[in-house]
Parts: sequence; C-alpha cells; structure tokens
Amino acid sequence: MSGTKLYEGKAKILFTTDDPQILRSQYKDDATAFNALKKGTIAHKGEMNCAIASRIFQYLESQGIATHFIQQISPHEMEVIAVKILPIEVVVRNIAAGSICKRLGLEQGQLLKQPLVEFFYKNDELGDPLITDAHIEMLELATPEQVTQLKQIALSINQHLQEFFKRCDLILVDFKVEMGIDHQGKLLLADEISPDTCRLWDQNIADPSDRILDKDRFRQDLGNVAEAYQEVAKRVLQA
Amino acid sequence: MSGTKLYEGKAKILFTTDDPQILRSQYKDDATAFNALKKGTIAHKGEMNCAIASRIFQYLESQGIATHFIQQISPHEMEVIAVKILPIEVVVRNIAAGSICKRLGLEQGQLLKQPLVEFFYKNDELGDPLITDAHIEMLELATPEQVTQLKQIALSINQHLQEFFKRCDLILVDFKVEMGIDHQGKLLLADEISPDTCRLWDQNIADPSDRILDKDRFRQDLGNVAEAYQEVAKRVLQA
Ligand SMILES: Nc1ncnc2c1ncn2[C@@H]1O[C@H](COP(=O)(O)OP(=O)(O)OP(=O)(O)O)[C@@H](O)[C@H]1O
Ligand SMILES: Nc1ncnc2c1ncn2[C@@H]1O[C@H](COP(=O)(O)OP(=O)(O)OP(=O)(O)O)[C@@H](O)[C@H]1O
Ligand SMILES: [Mg+2]
Ligand SMILES: [Mg+2]
Repeated sequence: MSGTKLYEGKAKILFTTDDPQILRSQYKDDATAFNALKKGTIAHKGEMNCAIASRIFQYLESQGIATHFIQQISPHEMEVIAVKILPIEVVVRNIAAGSICKRLGLEQGQLLKQPLVEFFYKNDELGDPLITDAHIEMLELATPEQVTQLKQIALSINQHLQEFFKRCDLILVDFKVEMGIDHQGKLLLADEISPDTCRLWDQNIADPSDRILDKDRFRQDLGNVAEAYQEVAKRVLQA
Repeated sequence: MSGTKLYEGKAKILFTTDDPQILRSQYKDDATAFNALKKGTIAHKGEMNCAIASRIFQYLESQGIATHFIQQISPHEMEVIAVKILPIEVVVRNIAAGSICKRLGLEQGQLLKQPLVEFFYKNDELGDPLITDAHIEMLELATPEQVTQLKQIALSINQHLQEFFKRCDLILVDFKVEMGIDHQGKLLLADEISPDTCRLWDQNIADPSDRILDKDRFRQDLGNVAEAYQEVAKRVLQA
C-alpha cells in the first residue's frame, strides 16, 4: 500500500492515497481508556472494528446519512473521504451509563425519557471537557447552524442505530461520533462506530456486567474483552 | 426579631416572618470557597454584603429587573420575597477568569467577544457541575421557556451591572445569580449580588493581583480581603 502516514491516533492510523480527497484508515488492536491513562491491546480489535464500522457506515448510508465511508479495502482498512474533523465529540445517550452518572447523580442503567445529545471539546490536554452551544460559539469550534445540524444528524443516527442494533439483539446505550467537513463544505459522519465508541448491551442478558459487549469490558477489567467484540462483529455482519 | 430559622447556608440565614410570603435574609461573616473545602470569616462581611446587595437590588429594580428584594431592615439583614429557588446557578462572564480558564484553556483576563451565560447544577454533593439546556430539561430543573427567560434576564442583569459598576470604577468580570419562582409563578432574581458572587476588578489598577476586589482575594490568599469588600461597599453606596 502506498501513501504516507498523516496521523497516528490511539485506535487508527490515517494514510494519504493518490487521491487527495481520499484517505486510508487503518484500524489498530490498541485500546485506551480514561484519556489514555489505561492502555492495552485487544486481540484482532482492528479487524473486528473495521468490519463492524464498515457494515454500520454502509447501513447508515442506505438510510440517508452522509458518511465518510467509501469502501473496506482490507480486513483492517477502509477508504474514507478526507474531512476536516470538527473538534467536537458528539455523544448521544439513551440510557445513563459511565461518566454522566457520576457527573449528574443518575443511576447506572436508568432509561432517559428522550435521547440526550452532549458535546465535548475534543482536546486531550483539557481531558475532553463538556461544552455547551455557547462555548462552541465562543471557541468558534463550529457555526450555530452547524451545531443545529450536528444535533439533528446525531439524533437521526441514533434512531437508525437503535433500529439496526435491535435486529442484533443489542441495546444501544450511548455512542460518540465525530463529524467533519469535506472539500465541498458538506458535513459528513466520520471517524468510526464500533464497540470502542458505543455502549452495547446484550438484550437477552439481565446481569449488569455480563450483558456488556463493548469497551466497558476493557475499562472495568470485566474479562472476555475480545470475545465481546467478536460477538458484536458476528451479529452486526449478519444483520 | 421574631421568625424561625428556615435554612442556614454558608453565607446567609433565612428566617420566616409573620407574612408567609416574606423572609428575612441575614448575612453572615462566614466565607467559604472551593465547594466549602476552604473556610474562614471576613470581618464585617455580613454588613458589607448586605449593604452592597441592597443597593444593587434597588438599582436593578429601578432598571426594570424583578428581584426578591423588599428592604434592608438592619445592617446585616434584608426582607425578601419568599421564592422557590431553581436549582441552577446562572453564571455570566465578560472576561475569562477562574474555573473556565482551566476548563477550556482560556487565558486569565481574556476579554470574551460577547457575554457568556453558563448554567451549573446547584448541587453541593455533585460539586455544582456544568449543565446544558438539555440536561436542565432531562433533570426537570426548569422548563425550556424558563431556560430562555433565565438567559435573557441574566444578560440584561449583566448589562445593567456593567453600567452600574463602571460608575464605581469597577470592571465586572463575571457573576453568579440564583433565580426563583414566587407564589404567583413569577421569575425573580433572588439570593445575593456581592463581592462573594461577582468578580470585580479595580479599573484603575493594572496589576492582576492588586486589582482584585472580590472573593478571589480570599480564595487565593491575597490579603486585604475585608479591605477589598470595604472598598467595593464604599464605591457602590456612593454610586
Ligand atoms: N475522514 C476523516 N478525515 C480526516 N480525519 C479523520 C477522518 N475520520 C477520522 N479522522 C480522525 O482521524 C483520527 C483517528 O485516529 P484515532 O481514532 O486513533 O484517534 P484518537 O486516538 O481517538 O485521538 P483523537 O481522536 O483525539 O485524535 C482522529 O483524530 C479522527 O478525528
Ligand atoms: N428569596 C429567597 N427565597 C428562598 N430562598 C432563597 C431566597 N434567596 C436566596 N435563597 C436561598 O437561601 C440560601 C442562602 O444561603 P447561602 O447563600 O448561605 O447558601 P449557600 O451556603 O450558598 O448554600 P446553597 O446556596 O448551596 O444552599 C440559598 O440556598 C439560596 O438559594
Ligand atoms: Mg478516536
Ligand atoms: Mg449562596
């Protein structure tokens, strides 16, 4: 494969291609949590996440969501449209889990009355702090119009993903997406959607630890981490 | 003075009066910072803050802002309209200082392009976390209409206070207000406005520490704490 390394992140490496508007995204087995305080690897995660993300991007495209996905080109690589990533992590929550419980005193597993959209400033040094629409405007991270769009697209993605994962007997607890602007100024869903970036619970298991099929198994040292990703991959590729 | 103690906070005590719609707010010399991790007293703070707050509430009323203030009834006491306080601390910032600098990587003293309104969940156990409009709706802390009103009123108060403090040769860096609902359902500015709840800088002093005339002198152990409050009281009562 040709191309030079553009950026190496914690979970993926981006390479240039012959076409300046196309990048190669290579998925790694590396796993990090708590702003990279916890580090490790998950066997075959790169391949599993690449397969899962490819299938999900494909599904979302079929539902009318504009994504950066072009095609999977190897077991752990996909071609994507080059975008300027907005420095905003968009989180959608259907059930309270993780940081929000501690932050706002919610019970783990509490169903939210309606999906909640949160924005975090994508800035590792600051620890990705929660931000409001007013902060986004002040920091000029996006225009007010883009903020409105981000919320609408995030909620639409949430509906489609809930539907999709239901077919896999998976409950979509929450997820994080990144969006970017392509060379035409169009907002595209970018980065990845995988058990690294979603909380997914097995619909048929009641036990609060046993049902977890996502990076929380790694975060909380619950064991069977690779097995959980494998299970998600299996179900997602059949859906 | 009759009335029973309704609530003792860190800076004030609320007493009932013969009229159930009227409370007596007694200002104390106690000072706390960093969610009460730091404790102390500031000589005559009760009297100074009561005088300052009385004058400011009066001024804001004259400018058309509805407040809970009725009248000052002793050097450290005022009568106020009983309200149901919304569990939201409304912060308005004109210049970056304090927590926001660390949180978002802003420079201390940086002028903001436009006033920034932030909401914090008034919850000591959780450490008063930052919240968004969506969190307020989820937690049912206020209705969306009230949130819109809170922002409008906060920005209007900011304009009037900036104007008022300018006459005192004071720069209004930021401030926190609490609002409540009276028995008719009307939103009133409540609690206090004082050097405990505002950052105020002497307009004629350039030195970043010397110019501070508010609770930051206590927070940062800058000395001359009571003297700073005294200076603000002197200027505010003359304005
Ligand atoms: N289509 C795209 N065009 C340009 N950049 C992209 C695209 N999709 C994703 N990215 C960016 O590529 C990087 C992917 O790497 P990875 O997910 O490993 O990063 P990371 O370790 O999460 O760190 P960070 O996201 O904080 O940079 C991210 O920075 C992501 O924002
Ligand atoms: N008009 C009012 N009617 C009812 N309650 C009020 C009114 N004005 C202020 N309060 C409340 O009275 C209390 C004032 O006490 P104080 O400012 O000392 O509290 P505090 O130590 O800051 O603690 P907290 O605000 O977290 O309760 C606050 O809880 C405030 O919200
Ligand atoms: Mg990433
Ligand atoms: Mg108080």
